Amino acid sequence: MIKIICVGKIKEKFYRDAIDEYLKRLSKYTKISIMEVDDIDYSNPEVSMQKEKDLILKYVDVKDYIITLEIEGQKYNSMDLSKKIDKILSINPNITFIIGGSYGLSLDIKKLSNMKLSFSDLTFPHQLFRIMLLEQIYRSYKILNNESYHK
Amino acid sequence: MIKIICVGKIKEKFYRDAIDEYLKRLSKYTKISIMEVDDIDYSNPEVSMQKEKDLILKYVDVKDYIITLEIEGQKYNSMDLSKKIDKILSINPNITFIIGGSYGLSLDIKKLSNMKLSFSDLTFPHQLFRIMLLEQIYRSYKILNNESYHK
Repeated sequence: MIKIICVGKIKEKFYRDAIDEYLKRLSKYTKISIMEVDDIDYSNPEVSMQKEKDLILKYVDVKDYIITLEIEGQKYNSMDLSKKIDKILSINPNITFIIGGSYGLSLDIKKLSNMKLSFSDLTFPHQLFRIMLLEQIYRSYKILNNESYHK
Repeated sequence: MIKIICVGKIKEKFYRDAIDEYLKRLSKYTKISIMEVDDIDYSNPEVSMQKEKDLILKYVDVKDYIITLEIEGQKYNSMDLSKKIDKILSINPNITFIIGGSYGLSLDIKKLSNMKLSFSDLTFPHQLFRIMLLEQIYRSYKILNNESYHK
């Protein structure tokens, strides 16, 4: 079972449609759910992160294997990431990914993390990043199932 | 003037809509055009890349500053990438980005490159990657114009 906790609503229809498409494709391989918490857009980043932290924590089950997406986290190629996910699932069948808001994740959330994962040194908007994460999870399952996929 | 040469048509409406949205946003800052060449899906990667190379070369102006997107290229964070793009534009007002097909870019195209740029060690589908590139170009212009943008 895969859970993605992320901050911020998605307004754009094309991003929502892309997410729905990946959720549909992934349903062939795993149960997957997205928990969306409100982004708190205070002028003070620290206050925003603290408020978002409380909202995120409502969805976190500390028994899950928790992967936080952090720009300074570890980098993988798609093949190695699929192997890593496979290994994690063999130990713990429940993985929770956490994507932060505009200001990133609070230290308290980072402390709960079992694995810090970085996709890129570049900063992406949370809407697009959510699709990038779904795509890599989907790609991982395709690789693990020996199904061709390079598009 | 920014030109993006890429391999493969985009069938999904949500990806086309996302691309149109970024092209609209970018039109405020620069002329930008996308040249889409057919992907050649032969079973032989070498043959595919050679055929795609010929199609790509029709759009390449070697007087442009050519940036090839390669998984093994140089990595930047968004701030440094915006500075790099600014520097390039001060020397050459025309940048051409080239995104390869499923099998990557042929050696002949790579040889024309002035800069090899990598977004991630992860492999992304060309449709999604095109949006990621447009987003980073847009982000660069926002940064260079001192406009807030973190979503």
